[in-house]
Amino acid sequence: MPEAVTRSVLRRGVNCDLGESYGRLRVGFDDEVMPFLSTANIACGYHGGDPSTMRRAAESAVEHGVLCGAHPSLPDLQGFGRRRMDVSPTELTDMVIYQIGALQAILGAVGTSLSHVKAHGVLYSMTWEPDLAHAFADAIEAIDPGLPWIAMTDTPTFAIAQERGLNPVPEFTADRDYSSDGRLIITRSPGPVDVEQMSRRVRDVVSTGSTLASDGVTRLSFQTDVVCMHSDGPNAPEVAARLWSILTHDGHQPWASPVGFNS
Amino acid sequence: MPEAVTRSVLRRGVNCDLGESYGRLRVGFDDEVMPFLSTANIACGYHGGDPSTMRRAAESAVEHGVLCGAHPSLPDLQGFGRRRMDVSPTELTDMVIYQIGALQAILGAVGTSLSHVKAHGVLYSMTWEPDLAHAFADAIEAIDPGLPWIAMTDTPTFAIAQERGLNPVPEFTADRDYSSDGRLIITRSPGPVDVEQMSRRVRDVVSTGSTLASDGVTRLSFQTDVVCMHSDGPNAPEVAARLWSILTHDGHQPWASPVGFNS
Amino acid sequence: MPEAVTRSVLRRGVNCDLGESYGRLRVGFDDEVMPFLSTANIACGYHGGDPSTMRRAAESAVEHGVLCGAHPSLPDLQGFGRRRMDVSPTELTDMVIYQIGALQAILGAVGTSLSHVKAHGVLYSMTWEPDLAHAFADAIEAIDPGLPWIAMTDTPTFAIAQERGLNPVPEFTADRDYSSDGRLIITRSPGPVDVEQMSRRVRDVVSTGSTLASDGVTRLSFQTDVVCMHSDGPNAPEVAARLWSILTHDGHQPWASPVGFNS
Amino acid sequence: MPEAVTRSVLRRGVNCDLGESYGRLRVGFDDEVMPFLSTANIACGYHGGDPSTMRRAAESAVEHGVLCGAHPSLPDLQGFGRRRMDVSPTELTDMVIYQIGALQAILGAVGTSLSHVKAHGVLYSMTWEPDLAHAFADAIEAIDPGLPWIAMTDTPTFAIAQERGLNPVPEFTADRDYSSDGRLIITRSPGPVDVEQMSRRVRDVVSTGSTLASDGVTRLSFQTDVVCMHSDGPNAPEVAARLWSILTHDGHQPWASPVGFNS
Repeated sequence: MPEAVTRSVLRRGVNCDLGESYGRLRVGFDDEVMPFLSTANIACGYHGGDPSTMRRAAESAVEHGVLCGAHPSLPDLQGFGRRRMDVSPTELTDMVIYQIGALQAILGAVGTSLSHVKAHGVLYSMTWEPDLAHAFADAIEAIDPGLPWIAMTDTPTFAIAQERGLNPVPEFTADRDYSSDGRLIITRSPGPVDVEQMSRRVRDVVSTGSTLASDGVTRLSFQTDVVCMHSDGPNAPEVAARLWSILTHDGHQPWASPVGFNS
Repeated sequence: MPEAVTRSVLRRGVNCDLGESYGRLRVGFDDEVMPFLSTANIACGYHGGDPSTMRRAAESAVEHGVLCGAHPSLPDLQGFGRRRMDVSPTELTDMVIYQIGALQAILGAVGTSLSHVKAHGVLYSMTWEPDLAHAFADAIEAIDPGLPWIAMTDTPTFAIAQERGLNPVPEFTADRDYSSDGRLIITRSPGPVDVEQMSRRVRDVVSTGSTLASDGVTRLSFQTDVVCMHSDGPNAPEVAARLWSILTHDGHQPWASPVGFNS
Repeated sequence: MPEAVTRSVLRRGVNCDLGESYGRLRVGFDDEVMPFLSTANIACGYHGGDPSTMRRAAESAVEHGVLCGAHPSLPDLQGFGRRRMDVSPTELTDMVIYQIGALQAILGAVGTSLSHVKAHGVLYSMTWEPDLAHAFADAIEAIDPGLPWIAMTDTPTFAIAQERGLNPVPEFTADRDYSSDGRLIITRSPGPVDVEQMSRRVRDVVSTGSTLASDGVTRLSFQTDVVCMHSDGPNAPEVAARLWSILTHDGHQPWASPVGFNS
Repeated sequence: MPEAVTRSVLRRGVNCDLGESYGRLRVGFDDEVMPFLSTANIACGYHGGDPSTMRRAAESAVEHGVLCGAHPSLPDLQGFGRRRMDVSPTELTDMVIYQIGALQAILGAVGTSLSHVKAHGVLYSMTWEPDLAHAFADAIEAIDPGLPWIAMTDTPTFAIAQERGLNPVPEFTADRDYSSDGRLIITRSPGPVDVEQMSRRVRDVVSTGSTLASDGVTRLSFQTDVVCMHSDGPNAPEVAARLWSILTHDGHQPWASPVGFNS
């Protein structure tokens, strides 16, 4: 069982989406994965995450020394934020501000504060489009220009964040495949993760900065400060434990000092 | 494993709420309990049950020979229809008609038709108030006055249904307690059911027409054609299997011919 | 003021979206336009139209001799069904069945029955994509293969409806522009309609079967049995009155006998 | 036309609910009443007020020198927050924090900050119940214990706010009746306000500290720092203009220096 003290300083550790249940409607292994996380992306009510679920997720994160970020999404509970919607840039900015603000207040109520932001579901890839990247950036700027923004390198999102002087934090998503052109493959209801295959990829990325795409041939480069996973996969607890183990072997964290996150 | 043929004629068997998930947000052991049911109350989108979940529940019910009823509720996904809302009688009538109609169309699409209706959650007890009982009755009358309406005897609901010439079907709820004044005790997030205690109560009711209230002293009478359970309890599969076993011991159903449900 | 008797037989008259308010949140000039309509497309709860609004719209339609059709849409109240969402074909089929069924039950409650169906908002143009056209067709087939389906000619939608032996009814949309390639231009919050320009186009279409595109140069052909308008435009009452006047000059309807709608 | 400069210092002026539209679904005369307000209660998404509507309301308020408060409510768009729901105290606390936080972020984005909070609709009277008053107070305390909380004197709400060292601001609601026992009469869809009768009551309250209840006989005492109205009444613009006129006759504000609101 990892110690909270260690984990609390481990910014470059496991990042996970959670707090996505909605009243009695449930999704995700929040309790099971929390002990292995460094940072959590908490749903903000649009694809999941009613206010009480959000608060409980935040309380649990605080208890485990996990940093809390906002996980804004499209207003689509039925589709769990995984169905593209053609929102306008202005609508996107406003709904992201709304969701981040809602979480900030809840974090304040449990004695912590916002550590970062990351777009959820299809909004993550929608922000690869420049106008929506700018719209998302506008929201972050309105909240706090220095707020760490977890994103993928080699995307317009990342470039725009850098150009605008914002604070993008590069991530590698461990429990999804990447196509040979470097795009994350997002599915609606993912099956169980092949943990051995995932382990090889993560070790590759952490040690060499590159790994193979889903075609098994193309080698993709990744600059990464965060290793991401999802709490809603059928074997998420196993995924979390394995990622923690890889990133902290022998009680040491394999990565250098934290980059991106404010102390 | 019960046979569909037997079960399809067993109207006086196990009745269960299901189809309450909402996209990726899940609740209930639908697949596990379905083999043991005679009748299912399918959610209609207001407390759970998006259209695709409804269709899948209906398809599974048809496959298992389970009759499909509507389970209309209050428009409260966050509260799972278990928080009272002061809707007006007219609003109630309209929203119940809406929900029943939606399910009817889905049932038609999977080759079956509506067998009954039962109010979900707190709406079940709200219809003990005469004005709301009449409002609910108005909805049923607009759909089909002969539609079996699962309700509790010794309530204004039941009396009003009888007075108006509707078709109330008395039920006994197996996996909840009754207070000493005969009221069903409805909770938001019920814990596991004590299956042995439940078995004693159900055997009592089926054989003698009465059982003890939650105080362990008061004896309550029940006239019942249906034994109800909920799919969202933590041990719902065990509850379903046990109820099936009690109601069909030795391959025979202990009750006489079906009452209330149209053939 | 038009007489209900005349209008009730005028199937080839003015068609309008309405019943789109949601509780106290209002949109559309339902009461003002109703006297001039032959057919109404009633919202079904997804982009607008709570059950009580739907019932009131249906009651008013019956009172005015207006035929009632279903106006299913995407589940997006915020975007009024005018923001594309990437729903799957199966999800689309299920949600359309759900919405049509809900309206059917409400129509039954007010003593009428479903006359037709038409997709709302961006779903109207989404059904130009073959897989979604088939998904919508699947929904109609599940309800009633003969149900008149208001659509645009020269679209995959229309062709697929014909191929599958369904009952497509061609329409001309009077209060929107068409681009030079014949596509309807759908906007989120349309401004006032230029009634004189609209009148010229409608007279053109009704008398010659063609009119000019928004470029003022390209001539587009339209086969049409229905002339459509929207109740949410700022001058919708004027639009409705003018359309009625054009289509019924001298007390006679300029078109031949009704096509498409069941008697 | 009142000047922004005057109005911006007039804390003891007209207070109004607004920002309650939801996408294309509209309610309230926001633009018409804004020039006459000192403080606005902006909807936060639960009974109305999508994020873009909230931002536009906030921008307009800033432009007119109107202070912006949060107007949290029950999650009931259909019922406009005017139907009682039996939320638990914890749920209430969490949903109020969520809504206030969402508005705070939007206010920050338009260059202003939160001035106060006031419960919307039936939640206003629900907070007269001690456990819900405490739940609401818990939310305010989590945000900022000094946040002005607009409430009614002689209620448990007000007493609890005082006991807990919070900052209750007494209000008089000008466009609703009070019953003879001093309770505000809340209706779902109010008709037009009798402006003359309202004027008499407001002049009474401002000058003498008391006025007549709806029975026309009982005299009720009111200590008040804020005179409240609603933007959704059919003659709200006239109501706003009249209240402004009463409270600022001869260019002077009739009340003493602002009480309750932070400068």
